Amino acid sequence: MEFTINQIAAILQGEVDGDGQKKVKTISKIEEAKEGSITFLANPKYEEFIYSSEASAVIVKNDFQPERPIPTTLIRVEDPYSGFTRLLEEYDKIISYSKGGVEEPSFISSNSEVGQKVYRGAFSYIGSNVKIGDNVKIYPHTYIGDNVSIGDNCIFYSGAKIYAETIVGNNCIIHSGAVIGSDGFGFAPQQDSTYKKIPQLGNVIISDNVEIGANTVVDCATLGSTRIDEGVKLDNLVQIAHNVEIGSNTVIASQTGISGSTKFGKNCVVAGQVGVVGHIEIADRVTLAARTGVSKSIKKEESVKFGAPAIDHKEYLKIHAIFRNLPELRERVNELEKKILNLPAN
Amino acid sequence: MEFTINQIAAILQGEVDGDGQKKVKTISKIEEAKEGSITFLANPKYEEFIYSSEASAVIVKNDFQPERPIPTTLIRVEDPYSGFTRLLEEYDKIISYSKGGVEEPSFISSNSEVGQKVYRGAFSYIGSNVKIGDNVKIYPHTYIGDNVSIGDNCIFYSGAKIYAETIVGNNCIIHSGAVIGSDGFGFAPQQDSTYKKIPQLGNVIISDNVEIGANTVVDCATLGSTRIDEGVKLDNLVQIAHNVEIGSNTVIASQTGISGSTKFGKNCVVAGQVGVVGHIEIADRVTLAARTGVSKSIKKEESVKFGAPAIDHKEYLKIHAIFRNLPELRERVNELEKKILNLPAN
Amino acid sequence: MEFTINQIAAILQGEVDGDGQKKVKTISKIEEAKEGSITFLANPKYEEFIYSSEASAVIVKNDFQPERPIPTTLIRVEDPYSGFTRLLEEYDKIISYSKGGVEEPSFISSNSEVGQKVYRGAFSYIGSNVKIGDNVKIYPHTYIGDNVSIGDNCIFYSGAKIYAETIVGNNCIIHSGAVIGSDGFGFAPQQDSTYKKIPQLGNVIISDNVEIGANTVVDCATLGSTRIDEGVKLDNLVQIAHNVEIGSNTVIASQTGISGSTKFGKNCVVAGQVGVVGHIEIADRVTLAARTGVSKSIKKEESVKFGAPAIDHKEYLKIHAIFRNLPELRERVNELEKKILNLPAN
Repeated sequence: MEFTINQIAAILQGEVDGDGQKKVKTISKIEEAKEGSITFLANPKYEEFIYSSEASAVIVKNDFQPERPIPTTLIRVEDPYSGFTRLLEEYDKIISYSKGGVEEPSFISSNSEVGQKVYRGAFSYIGSNVKIGDNVKIYPHTYIGDNVSIGDNCIFYSGAKIYAETIVGNNCIIHSGAVIGSDGFGFAPQQDSTYKKIPQLGNVIISDNVEIGANTVVDCATLGSTRIDEGVKLDNLVQIAHNVEIGSNTVIASQTGISGSTKFGKNCVVAGQVGVVGHIEIADRVTLAARTGVSKSIKKEESVKFGAPAIDHKEYLKIHAIFRNLPELRERVNELEKKILNLPAN
Repeated sequence: MEFTINQIAAILQGEVDGDGQKKVKTISKIEEAKEGSITFLANPKYEEFIYSSEASAVIVKNDFQPERPIPTTLIRVEDPYSGFTRLLEEYDKIISYSKGGVEEPSFISSNSEVGQKVYRGAFSYIGSNVKIGDNVKIYPHTYIGDNVSIGDNCIFYSGAKIYAETIVGNNCIIHSGAVIGSDGFGFAPQQDSTYKKIPQLGNVIISDNVEIGANTVVDCATLGSTRIDEGVKLDNLVQIAHNVEIGSNTVIASQTGISGSTKFGKNCVVAGQVGVVGHIEIADRVTLAARTGVSKSIKKEESVKFGAPAIDHKEYLKIHAIFRNLPELRERVNELEKKILNLPAN
Repeated sequence: MEFTINQIAAILQGEVDGDGQKKVKTISKIEEAKEGSITFLANPKYEEFIYSSEASAVIVKNDFQPERPIPTTLIRVEDPYSGFTRLLEEYDKIISYSKGGVEEPSFISSNSEVGQKVYRGAFSYIGSNVKIGDNVKIYPHTYIGDNVSIGDNCIFYSGAKIYAETIVGNNCIIHSGAVIGSDGFGFAPQQDSTYKKIPQLGNVIISDNVEIGANTVVDCATLGSTRIDEGVKLDNLVQIAHNVEIGSNTVIASQTGISGSTKFGKNCVVAGQVGVVGHIEIADRVTLAARTGVSKSIKKEESVKFGAPAIDHKEYLKIHAIFRNLPELRERVNELEKKILNLPAN
């Protein structure tokens, strides 16, 4: 981006104090801001940085009175933090709206349908009988298999892989290297100790407003659908096995794995490196702390669990404190044994 | 797929009871079946679903007598579950056999050899001096490096990456984003506290009937070969380090990591998120429970291990039960100390 | 490669003892060497292998005197191990220098600049306003987003994904499926229990001599930069969250995850499957054992930590030994209670 400070002030409905013709190219934190960048001052604790900042512009509160002269241009607004957040969002839109049209070579089957204003990057692949809505961005090296259906306003970053039959809603973001719809891990043991593959014929259904992180994998169902409900956010390198269901607005952090057929409720918060066994149910608004291992259903809503196997978070902390002091506990038992031994024979 | 019920009955050698001209497009579970789908009824517990099911066809046992009228067409067979399984397999074959020919643009070096009936998807890349057998499916964005050798009937899903020198047997399936043959993690510490890369010049050898999950990584050997033996199944996001050997028919679940030069025996079962250190050996038919951390060789066949560091599974459960009750154990020690203190002086 | 033994001896400044015209095609360990391969004998313990080896050539010490006749050709050098290592490095150079030129179709924006002797593989993509130095190898299916800057002598293996705005130094190696610069996992909870995406507008800065493993993910900063400093080595499937900083020459093994805004010092050694929470600092030269979970800053340099939550490595081993013997400890408490009970009433 490259805007004059006057242009930015207009977006924010703010008042310019200084040279409004200067150009701004990037957005920074106040303590790191260099020439050509815009930043903000909301928290008075950071005020000292404004006097040494090289930023070309700083968004400040209407009534901000500098104690010393400031070389940078100020944009005065009602609420600097909201103004800055709004600027971030606008900037993000500008960046992501900038991609459009079709880069060649790209591949699309003749019987697939694509909506209005869709970006199809070079080397992107769209299989047979695919339906894609409006304003979708398909970055280079994206693979969209046969019979896939995609709503409006989605972004598929470079190298996202969408297996055949997957359904994706509106406003979804799928990051690079994410794989959606790969075969579930299902094998039937045979008499001769080999395994026979159980065909995985279901699909994945991703609802609206879902974001899926880089190199995360969501397997298709054996039959039926693996479901990622509305508003779910999955971080990078997460594993979602076949026939899992993740309830709406549940967020799952990096490197967590959910085993087959497990069902998560709504608005759960799952930290990183958690493991959850298969075929269990997790209630709504459950929190799982980092690295928790869940081996049984959690039926109580709003439970907070920790440890492996998972137990109540507070109880775990109490137990772990004793664990940390096991050498002392053993020493006390040693002492007791000595004392008992030294008691007069009875 | 789209078949008439009569066609499916012919495959299953079953008898049609109802309209055999209706068309079937998909396969479902009985409790989820919609119009256009076929399902089965094997377990009498599910009988009630057949009366409300919208399925176009249901596979039932020869002698099934409905208690009420049923709108769907029945296919009567000796064993409904086997019939259904066979249908799944046939369906799977139809889907996977449907890909063929060469989509352009694709890339193949002039000195590489490709067998009969090979599918090469758009943007697939085959390097120099590669040999590929018959009936291989190479989906879009697959990369096959120089000097790679691949047997018959393999499937490489979109974006599988096969580094140079890798050898792959027959009937293997490599899922999207799997990386085979990347450099092992080997660095020699230098005097100036930097690291110098140790060249990784070996390769990966994958035997017949192996399946490798999405975004799993198998590193090449420093020298010699990392080996994935016959019938091994690796789930998604698994890490296999350099010079590892995985014995035949061993299965490894998602997010497990095996460190360098470790050797697994045959028919082991490794659950998810397990970690195994380098340079150790695991005997045949060993089971490792989820999240187990293995730091020493396991020499006894059929061992079942749990915990980190790994110990005998039953022993671990016993210890963990006491761990869960540590607050109580400490309280008992507190009580003992009080009682001792209150004893008459001796 | 294919060299005569005389050619190899010339590179190593060694003396040929036997047929120097024989050709060598590969490099092996002495216990596995087949005809057409070269190996070495440095450790006297391995001497017996030389008498049965099928190797075409063996690098030995100047003064090596075989006890029995040897069929293979010897190359006599001052230090066989160094000689062998040098041969590995030369071999590695030959392999990696062999790629050059541009394979078509490939994509590069007209306003991007590429240095001398750059390999651009088929289906590689270079976005707008990109700067790439000399001797860079860009394998097939690599994606390089807009405004990326790359130094000299870097290698991007097939399917590496570099998001817009990333900066990469000199002599870096990025393996297949690694994703650099994907969005950090940042969402603001809303009143209606949905989440609103916080735009991730920063970038990733990778300094010189960094190696990043297959399918590893490094997220961009929310604002500012996620930093991977000089000489850092990341293994496969590692997660580096937004705004993390990894100090120079720190090495991180497979499947470890570092949460947002955490800062690692220099020359740390992090084993596999470690988890580190966000917003903390780790001092220089800290070692984290496998699967350690770090929840607080580690301020003391050269600390060695283990367990989850992480504690001093030696202390952890002591505690864990008692944990392993908890059934015995409980039995001793049982005994004490019995003895107390049997004491004469007082």
